[in-house]
Amino acid sequence: MYKERSEMISGIIKSHDLSGLIFWRPDELVLALGYMPLWGLSVLVYPADDEPVLFVPELEPEDLLPANIKIKTFPWGAKDCPDPWNVLYKEIKEVLLQKHLLNKPVSFIKSIGGTAPCRMSGEQPLLPADFTECLCSLSETGFKDATEDLLRLYQCKTPADIAGLKLTHRVAAVAVIVFYQQVNAGITESKLAALIEYAVQEMIGQEEISFARAWPMVLSGENTSNGGKYNRTTGKVIVSGDLVMLEMAVCVNGYWADITRTAISGVASDLQMEIFETVKNAQQIAIEMLRPGVAMKEVDGAARKYIEEAGYGAYFNHALGHQVGFRYHDPGAGLSANSNEVLQEGMVLTVEPGIYGVELNAGVRTEDNILITKNGYEILSDYPRNLKGKS
Amino acid sequence: MYKERSEMISGIIKSHDLSGLIFWRPDELVLALGYMPLWGLSVLVYPADDEPVLFVPELEPEDLLPANIKIKTFPWGAKDCPDPWNVLYKEIKEVLLQKHLLNKPVSFIKSIGGTAPCRMSGEQPLLPADFTECLCSLSETGFKDATEDLLRLYQCKTPADIAGLKLTHRVAAVAVIVFYQQVNAGITESKLAALIEYAVQEMIGQEEISFARAWPMVLSGENTSNGGKYNRTTGKVIVSGDLVMLEMAVCVNGYWADITRTAISGVASDLQMEIFETVKNAQQIAIEMLRPGVAMKEVDGAARKYIEEAGYGAYFNHALGHQVGFRYHDPGAGLSANSNEVLQEGMVLTVEPGIYGVELNAGVRTEDNILITKNGYEILSDYPRNLKGKS
Repeated sequence: MYKERSEMISGIIKSHDLSGLIFWRPDELVLALGYMPLWGLSVLVYPADDEPVLFVPELEPEDLLPANIKIKTFPWGAKDCPDPWNVLYKEIKEVLLQKHLLNKPVSFIKSIGGTAPCRMSGEQPLLPADFTECLCSLSETGFKDATEDLLRLYQCKTPADIAGLKLTHRVAAVAVIVFYQQVNAGITESKLAALIEYAVQEMIGQEEISFARAWPMVLSGENTSNGGKYNRTTGKVIVSGDLVMLEMAVCVNGYWADITRTAISGVASDLQMEIFETVKNAQQIAIEMLRPGVAMKEVDGAARKYIEEAGYGAYFNHALGHQVGFRYHDPGAGLSANSNEVLQEGMVLTVEPGIYGVELNAGVRTEDNILITKNGYEILSDYPRNLKGKS
Repeated sequence: MYKERSEMISGIIKSHDLSGLIFWRPDELVLALGYMPLWGLSVLVYPADDEPVLFVPELEPEDLLPANIKIKTFPWGAKDCPDPWNVLYKEIKEVLLQKHLLNKPVSFIKSIGGTAPCRMSGEQPLLPADFTECLCSLSETGFKDATEDLLRLYQCKTPADIAGLKLTHRVAAVAVIVFYQQVNAGITESKLAALIEYAVQEMIGQEEISFARAWPMVLSGENTSNGGKYNRTTGKVIVSGDLVMLEMAVCVNGYWADITRTAISGVASDLQMEIFETVKNAQQIAIEMLRPGVAMKEVDGAARKYIEEAGYGAYFNHALGHQVGFRYHDPGAGLSANSNEVLQEGMVLTVEPGIYGVELNAGVRTEDNILITKNGYEILSDYPRNLKGKS
């Protein structure tokens, strides 16, 4: 448990007068412990006296478990236990009972919407249907909603989180190199995406990388026109003159990077070049504004104004950026016209202006991930970003 | 909407006297419409009079939408709609109102546990926290639980589902070929897994393939000893004499195959060969028993008995198989000692005996997907399955 994070958690317990907090969503476990679960069935109980207990299924790989925390297993996956969940609930209750904490409510986030997948990302965690209801009844006084404060935990990356994110961005750098090397006429979007996924997954085992996926989506030519509505890879062959967008959600050990690059196959037309330069300059203007205390909506507004003045305002159809790191899209306020919040040290945000239009037969986005530092910012994804992949 | 499926759905509506059924989980939409959503935010409303309406977010790609069904969009993703969900709820209610159906309860499955991911598998669908509660309040008479019957919809694959599954298994065949070709001393587990993922994703665009992922997990040498507890890829280098297990969850357009093959790098020892042959024979015995009317537990029992008599009973630490097709693991009874159900035509099941043990320094599993036919069975994954990938 990182020191800074544990202090934030204790603060929430105190301010809501809780018996304890429960973390169960995969990205919460990364946030609290730097631990990305395999099965997605692990439950962290953080009682009011600060001695957390991590419950994991018996089948969880031991080498993934975090150090310096008490771990208990419950018999999920054991062949002869018909109801492992009741064992878990009983043991959690026992932890609260021993600490004389049954007379105050528990709290946790109920919704799984938008959360990151566990390592077994091919299916949702096999949680029982009444899981959150059962958690609510662990304390005699039930549940108290502290969602707003709990979501704020995502907004501040600790030094340990930043180290994790930097590893992710080193992996993403390799993916970006592969993209610019391979984005040639004749290759399909799907082959290009597959090469990027290959390059990222192949790195498992290097450094401290125990999980790596790129989730790449490649859009080319006319498909880029819809890049402001959705991203997905098709079997389209990339031809000379195509703009090609790579959108990817690189996850390494539970830490996420959200990167977009746009390249050209062959030679860019004047219109393509103008759109690309407009996006690039808007991004640069926005990034240079980043520092603690700046209003999020002003950053969005500055990039938007630049694009509007270039005549492309109608084609920038989404917000400028969002928080990122524990997920592909972290919760919390983003760089948007609707935000009333200001930037804070430790936030990580995407800055991703885009111009897309069927009438333009073009779509361009450039997206980077930026850490807000004490006095300014640090670009975590400082890779080549021009149309030919040069710096 | 497939004819057979719509009849099953109507039957549930009638037997529970409902105003309608709602399908929202990604695998339910594949099951009902053959449609795998991109955003995972699509909602199928099936009113009591059999004219279903599919609600999709404005940002959903149009070419993915199923034909022959009424489609309405709701403004999720639209820049100026602060609450797209209330628009959706209001429109669903309007559908029920027009059909004079507000005086009977709605039903749907509430739990997301175990479901398949949508195409955007890098994060959970961005559903609101109170989504299922809001669905419950759409009818004046609230919600009625029909979960048991709804889960039974997964158990019968229609001809259209079987066609989808056969495409998935043609893609998985390519992955199996890559596995046996590349499983050589010197390669890492991660590189081997990445090559398999590459081969599968690269096929997007061929035939009718619009989504393809392999979710491969490669375990080698001592790592196979834990193959009965979990599967995951590490950076371990495969050396001569290693058993190597490939477990994968191949998804094509929302239809899933769950395949395991075990290979040997170099030459198998007598013990490795004995374990492999025991698993292979147990699988063969089980598969040959499959036909409608046979008790599931008897199939598990026969494979288990064979492995026990070979002296490895303690090392076969999981059930023989489960249903598969709309997910990596479909709901419903499986080939296990606990099952009291019998096989039915149209079911698709895995048959996956395994022997794993740290004391054996070995793990072996062979897993195939079998369709129950009118008079017997059809192996959907009839690929090479011996230690060297020969038939």
